[in-house]
Amino acid sequence: MTKRPRYFNLEPIMNPKSIAVIGASDNPDKIGHVILANNVASGFRGAIYPININASGTIMGYTAYKSILDVKEKVDLAVVAVPAEVVPKVVEECGRAGVRGIIVVSGGFSEVGRKDLQDKVTRSGMKYNIPIIGPNCLGVTDSYSKIDTLFLPAAKIDKPVVGGVSFASQSGAVGSSVLDMIDNEGFGLARFISYGNAAVVDEVDILNYLADDEKTKVIVFYIEGVQRGKEFIEAAKRAALKKPIVVSKGGMTDEGAKAAHSHTAALAGSHQAYEAVFKQFGFIMADDIQELLNLSKIFETQPLPKGRRIAILTNGGGTGVLATDALYEHGLQIAEMSKKTVESLRKVMPPIVNVRLPLDMAGDAEKTRFEAALAAFEADPKIDAIIAIALFQTPGADENVAAKLVEYGTKMRKPMVVVSPGGSYTKRQRQIIEKGGVPVYESPGEAAKALAALASYAEYRDSHVKKSR
Amino acid sequence: MTKRPRYFNLEPIMNPKSIAVIGASDNPDKIGHVILANNVASGFRGAIYPININASGTIMGYTAYKSILDVKEKVDLAVVAVPAEVVPKVVEECGRAGVRGIIVVSGGFSEVGRKDLQDKVTRSGMKYNIPIIGPNCLGVTDSYSKIDTLFLPAAKIDKPVVGGVSFASQSGAVGSSVLDMIDNEGFGLARFISYGNAAVVDEVDILNYLADDEKTKVIVFYIEGVQRGKEFIEAAKRAALKKPIVVSKGGMTDEGAKAAHSHTAALAGSHQAYEAVFKQFGFIMADDIQELLNLSKIFETQPLPKGRRIAILTNGGGTGVLATDALYEHGLQIAEMSKKTVESLRKVMPPIVNVRLPLDMAGDAEKTRFEAALAAFEADPKIDAIIAIALFQTPGADENVAAKLVEYGTKMRKPMVVVSPGGSYTKRQRQIIEKGGVPVYESPGEAAKALAALASYAEYRDSHVKKSR
Repeated sequence: MTKRPRYFNLEPIMNPKSIAVIGASDNPDKIGHVILANNVASGFRGAIYPININASGTIMGYTAYKSILDVKEKVDLAVVAVPAEVVPKVVEECGRAGVRGIIVVSGGFSEVGRKDLQDKVTRSGMKYNIPIIGPNCLGVTDSYSKIDTLFLPAAKIDKPVVGGVSFASQSGAVGSSVLDMIDNEGFGLARFISYGNAAVVDEVDILNYLADDEKTKVIVFYIEGVQRGKEFIEAAKRAALKKPIVVSKGGMTDEGAKAAHSHTAALAGSHQAYEAVFKQFGFIMADDIQELLNLSKIFETQPLPKGRRIAILTNGGGTGVLATDALYEHGLQIAEMSKKTVESLRKVMPPIVNVRLPLDMAGDAEKTRFEAALAAFEADPKIDAIIAIALFQTPGADENVAAKLVEYGTKMRKPMVVVSPGGSYTKRQRQIIEKGGVPVYESPGEAAKALAALASYAEYRDSHVKKSR
Repeated sequence: MTKRPRYFNLEPIMNPKSIAVIGASDNPDKIGHVILANNVASGFRGAIYPININASGTIMGYTAYKSILDVKEKVDLAVVAVPAEVVPKVVEECGRAGVRGIIVVSGGFSEVGRKDLQDKVTRSGMKYNIPIIGPNCLGVTDSYSKIDTLFLPAAKIDKPVVGGVSFASQSGAVGSSVLDMIDNEGFGLARFISYGNAAVVDEVDILNYLADDEKTKVIVFYIEGVQRGKEFIEAAKRAALKKPIVVSKGGMTDEGAKAAHSHTAALAGSHQAYEAVFKQFGFIMADDIQELLNLSKIFETQPLPKGRRIAILTNGGGTGVLATDALYEHGLQIAEMSKKTVESLRKVMPPIVNVRLPLDMAGDAEKTRFEAALAAFEADPKIDAIIAIALFQTPGADENVAAKLVEYGTKMRKPMVVVSPGGSYTKRQRQIIEKGGVPVYESPGEAAKALAALASYAEYRDSHVKKSR
């Protein structure tokens, strides 16, 4: 087998000027139809070439071709959605046609014991030096280039807004669930890559690409197994100095690893080894799907803290108690307020408010008390970050409080997260705050865990960026 | 101080035939007004007596009285919403008037250093042998008697449907947040008790009351500190044999305990001691608000499992891998299917489906595959419980799949939970399933943790109910 480059450039896949959809069809039940339709709907502006062995005339209004070899113009990206048996031939033709990137969405390869078919795809990729994503994947969607190869019914999945989080997933299922949840979590997407069996393009290529990508502020990964261990470590080291990497690893137990092997034929390797590598390079590890989202969103909008001294403000005592517990459970600590802060708060808060941290501003706290606390905490050099608990069930907490939380959560040079558990009224306030750019959590524990991840990454950056100079 | 009874009967508070609202007012800004209005709105059918020292004529259309002593009829429950300084006098008058239960919602007692005022309330309660809830609390709401003393703006809090979960909270803030979240979690409420400073009625009384209450299937507690340790242990032992108890303890760290003390003046005691007691009596411990809900809802609808052998079915491989990891992380295990199950599944599933657990039925699985798997797992004696992962982003998963999940999740004699992460389309399906009576989780880890709690409680019951016979 020809030697592969150290890593493939994914630019022709993520930002193509022209795409061919191989297996395109006018029949709406065909995957090739959905992919074609989605790219048209997503606003992709480049040239589109439908390819189908049975084609004559047009497909969905575009001139159709029987083979990629019949297209005279330069094709950047070919998306392949034909039966597995036919894929090797199609990929080989793409190579001969000078296509610059390929996505094979079709399944039926290593994951069902057809390693022979997958090896042919790998060989073509190496021979022609083409990055190939897949097989057995959903492909990619990109908020900037508008490329979209996901063959999921549009009515069933919420489209995220444009943002700074890029998400790569070996599993299409985990990928599409997370993608569907992003909008509700109030953060935005840069690139999404579902890479399946990783016949050519693997974690190493993706990590390198996203590390250098200016639109990507946070890299998020769902991984089942890494094949090029040494190169992965190298890429991880380089990427982690540039931006935070949140990772969830499927197959962290023996039985889970067996399931992963049957799923994407991933070589799961020892969990301890993975964990050691992730820890060494300051990766943020998420156990579960919701946690992956919780840990990702804080990195998109919040600055890194200078330390672990946290101020909690709340309009409900019990939630302040739980938040305090959660801080210590996650290695953070309650800040000590400076004298100036204490004095300024004493002036504003009513006598029943005990001016200590956590600051319980009482159930009738409204905009004024919230603002006084936020302003004092912003100015206090002994406070590194803020957890603002806003219980919107109370009489005083309303859209004015939400607006203050957005104002301070976006202008301060220290990180802030909001905790707002509740039902429909609370959800509306939560949306205002999140759309405003401040992460909101349902539980104090989730907020503390996210802040702790931010603090840990800050410490990793501090020690390693200096070292590497 | 007069000796208190072993425990107070809360029936006059939870199911009163008549209530007096002391501090009632026509002014909508007054708490006494909100309480009066809420009871009228909630459909409380008993007699209502507004009391206000300045009253003349009527308040909100009801004949008003200057003092409880002026009311000639028997009053079951007095709800007190007057300034803290006046509360002792008012409570003493209630005692003299023969009121059978009291709720003091007013704050301004031990939690702000006024133990003197609180002691007077305690003394009156003991002297007249009246259960008094509070002070510094929201009081109660009851799905059956329709009593509702919560003075929260109705537009800001979602009302739960009638159900089998009863929730007692020392903290009004944690209480009202959880109450507000219940409806969205798809389960129903029996009783809610926010008991604040626990001057008279405490955890022991509440635990005993809920243990004997036929409408309560699951007891849920947010506790900051227990004052009568010995009696609590006795009550815990008795209650745990009758029904599951889910508990979240604020102040599990030293700093959290300090915050709890400043909040409800709770004597937090050693965390280890609490944990030991909770474990000894099979309590289900929740770390966080969302977890409290996750662990509560499975007990409302699902039967206890016979063992820890779990079958996972999924229409997405990666989520099945994460669920498998989560099972083992929470002390559960993947079941081995019986031969009969394997054979029946081989007949129905397409060739690309590898018939093993976790059962990955592929991304195009629809109603038929879901039903075949559920029917086979239901009949298989080697399977104790089921995690059904339904990713509604896929083409085949729709309301027909949701309906099948409801059908099997309610008719089977083994527990089932559903995992469905996603956005707005998924949320609609999730609601169908939850309203149908089957718990749904967003993440595989949450589902596994809930099933593990169910299994642990089943084991506790098995060993202790037998022992105590």
